[in-house]
Amino acid sequence: MATAGASHEAPPQAIVDLLGVLAYGELSAFDRLAEDARRAPTLSGRAALSAMAAAEIGHFRMLQEHLASFGVPVEEAMAPFVEPLDAYHAATAPRSWLESLVKAYVGDGIAADFYREVAEWVSGPTGDLVRHVLADTGHSAFAEREVRAAAEADQQVHDRLALWGRRLFGEAVTQAQRVIAERDELAKFIVAGSGDLAGIGGLLRRMQANHSERMSRLGLD
Amino acid sequence: MATAGASHEAPPQAIVDLLGVLAYGELSAFDRLAEDARRAPTLSGRAALSAMAAAEIGHFRMLQEHLASFGVPVEEAMAPFVEPLDAYHAATAPRSWLESLVKAYVGDGIAADFYREVAEWVSGPTGDLVRHVLADTGHSAFAEREVRAAAEADQQVHDRLALWGRRLFGEAVTQAQRVIAERDELAKFIVAGSGDLAGIGGLLRRMQANHSERMSRLGLD
Repeated sequence: MATAGASHEAPPQAIVDLLGVLAYGELSAFDRLAEDARRAPTLSGRAALSAMAAAEIGHFRMLQEHLASFGVPVEEAMAPFVEPLDAYHAATAPRSWLESLVKAYVGDGIAADFYREVAEWVSGPTGDLVRHVLADTGHSAFAEREVRAAAEADQQVHDRLALWGRRLFGEAVTQAQRVIAERDELAKFIVAGSGDLAGIGGLLRRMQANHSERMSRLGLD
Repeated sequence: MATAGASHEAPPQAIVDLLGVLAYGELSAFDRLAEDARRAPTLSGRAALSAMAAAEIGHFRMLQEHLASFGVPVEEAMAPFVEPLDAYHAATAPRSWLESLVKAYVGDGIAADFYREVAEWVSGPTGDLVRHVLADTGHSAFAEREVRAAAEADQQVHDRLALWGRRLFGEAVTQAQRVIAERDELAKFIVAGSGDLAGIGGLLRRMQANHSERMSRLGLD
């Protein structure tokens, strides 16, 4: 692993894959959030979701620059992950504004959890970058407020959104497993990072626990 | 006019209007750029246009915070300008990726010109804000490179895009005139700012000259 400040050293394929999947995750989240923002019932909602979308691009650009410092074009690193991430978004297209908000909130949270885990495994400039991206969040108060109010006002809305949140997490895990099954180096990196196969189980349990906490904050428990 | 640091003083309606039209200009540009980005033929193009979109939200948030410091919700300030700006975008929906790039570039340029003019008329924190937004540009190298290459390769493409650029400027002026016709305070402010009615003619000529220069940089003269 390169030390801080060093650069231009060819990184292991797993690191390129990791940065690539994170980059396309940000770019595709931008795209979907921007589309969802268009259907907001109020200008405030549209502005809030647009701001969440714009934050993804900030992260994307950091990942792009970091890959460029290794001499790797971001397009090349992202290419293997376009299809599975697009499939995730196609399978979880929100049918209402509240579903959009829950998806934005839950997706942001899952991504932050994953960045947090990865930050433990990676040292040097890549680790610094991951921690930097992680620190730059906090656009979610709007989603918490809106979803909680709607769920409190109507039990049926509450129940449907609770199911939706559970499904989003399940779809994310399913797609992540498909990605890992096809990328040997990335799979080895994640197994090594989390310790062993049992470590991956632990990682999934932590992410599930954080997801449940987030659902509570949305008033969806 | 409030001096730097002062706040919470009710601003003249013209300033609220000005900030409102700029804010909705940013929010609607975000929306259209994000939509156009989706149709990019390459991941690089998609990333470049997404980054231009995200920059608009950065500006939007500054305008929103500035209005909030006056106690004015951004939604309220934007409301009168939603219809005319949506009409501009509806009338200029790009039919191709190259038209999207030309629109993004030309729209950014026209907005920057207008900010630059306004910065001359407004002192205090509002003037500072306008200058700050103005300084934060420069996402346009990608559009210049792509459009120029396509225009050089095919005279018909060149001619169609040159007409498109001219039309974009015309539509922007038309919609701006409609807005001003309906907002007396804003009209007075712009007339006062540019000196007199002849001053407005000068302003339009400067914007036209800058637009022509931008078209040259795109290889469309």
